[in-house]
Amino acid sequence: MMRRLLLVSNSTLHGSGYLDHCQQQIADFFGKDVKKVLFVPYALHDRDKYTKTARDKFQTLGYEVSGIHEAADPVEAVRKAEAIFIGGGNTFRLLKSLYDNKVVSEIRKRVLEDGVPYMGSSAGTNVATVSISTTNDMPIVYPPSFAAIGLVPFNINPHYLDTDPNSRHMGETREQRITQYHEEVDTCVLGLREGCMLLVEGNKATLLGSTNARLFNRGKPCEEFKPGSDLSFLLTDAH
Amino acid sequence: MMRRLLLVSNSTLHGSGYLDHCQQQIADFFGKDVKKVLFVPYALHDRDKYTKTARDKFQTLGYEVSGIHEAADPVEAVRKAEAIFIGGGNTFRLLKSLYDNKVVSEIRKRVLEDGVPYMGSSAGTNVATVSISTTNDMPIVYPPSFAAIGLVPFNINPHYLDTDPNSRHMGETREQRITQYHEEVDTCVLGLREGCMLLVEGNKATLLGSTNARLFNRGKPCEEFKPGSDLSFLLTDAH
Repeated sequence: MMRRLLLVSNSTLHGSGYLDHCQQQIADFFGKDVKKVLFVPYALHDRDKYTKTARDKFQTLGYEVSGIHEAADPVEAVRKAEAIFIGGGNTFRLLKSLYDNKVVSEIRKRVLEDGVPYMGSSAGTNVATVSISTTNDMPIVYPPSFAAIGLVPFNINPHYLDTDPNSRHMGETREQRITQYHEEVDTCVLGLREGCMLLVEGNKATLLGSTNARLFNRGKPCEEFKPGSDLSFLLTDAH
Repeated sequence: MMRRLLLVSNSTLHGSGYLDHCQQQIADFFGKDVKKVLFVPYALHDRDKYTKTARDKFQTLGYEVSGIHEAADPVEAVRKAEAIFIGGGNTFRLLKSLYDNKVVSEIRKRVLEDGVPYMGSSAGTNVATVSISTTNDMPIVYPPSFAAIGLVPFNINPHYLDTDPNSRHMGETREQRITQYHEEVDTCVLGLREGCMLLVEGNKATLLGSTNARLFNRGKPCEEFKPGSDLSFLLTDAH
């Protein structure tokens, strides 16, 4: 079975509702065969409320939603899932909960071996990559590792933000932070601006949405990609 | 011996040079008795270059600087230090290096038991607190713990940034991130805006500099403090 991923930068785009900006891509991605999506609300504190938000939105697209925290056995819930959606919030809390509930390797297996479609947004996109080392979030809890589910062989920086030349703030820019990451690790980083998303189907990766993505390769100039770009080269280890 | 700390939000203020905005406070803090400051450059990748930057600045204030990485035995360097300054950069890299070099408990001992003056800026301020859980930095490396040196019983968010009401970016604001931290932990968080710093002398804490600080207590409204404010209540466990 081929892997199928929809990795969205952000759950909400300024001026629109929850997942509105990517609802067509969600419907295209899950299609008509999927009836029920397993939602993972671990990134937010109030899991019931978060699941209701996701359920309400997915119902308008014709899909049922079950919250993984509602299942007696989360591993079994992943084993039975037709489709998985991991929502955004705090990436450290999300990854720690995934490990605490022992579902990291089961999700990997289901997606890579069984072809279960996986959608992530924001933190849910971070955890689909090699590691959470390029999250923007605060380390509010300590996960047992920064290694993530590893559905793709690179990292993503969601909510990617360009440097504001007029800023008087002296904290590191996003680009400086990613450069610091590349002082330690050579995994490349795809900066997904709000509004764009990556569709992966087997060994094909395509940028979708309304904004460009920026690719950071250690020691090389950054590259910009427009929606519609073929990014399949990112899926090979030696790009 | 009483503890003496100077915890600076940011190393460089917009429009001025390295540590210029706090040079008077640095001179007042280290005073005439200190001759040499042990500098910890672990937060940046190029330790020699960073030490040169610190050395050049401190020389203009009348202090010698030795880099901890230049010592054959970093623990011994801490044991002999007259004064310690930990500079900013990436907080995860800094804390991991402090643990790797086994100096976390030695610095704590020297500052709390021997009264060695400790200055931190940005990441160097983060590591002086309870934990690095309220850093703004990317988790580019995995430290063995988020627990920090623990020179004060609360956390600090350096480079604290107010919410921009005109922003169209949908990533969490700084305040939302600290609120997420308080969903997990009840340690209070002092948001130090760029330009301010905290002076701790024994059980007395005073806000210095040119900007206000914002205090986050779990479940309570935020409080604003002006430079000159007495924040000694933060040093008692039951504030």
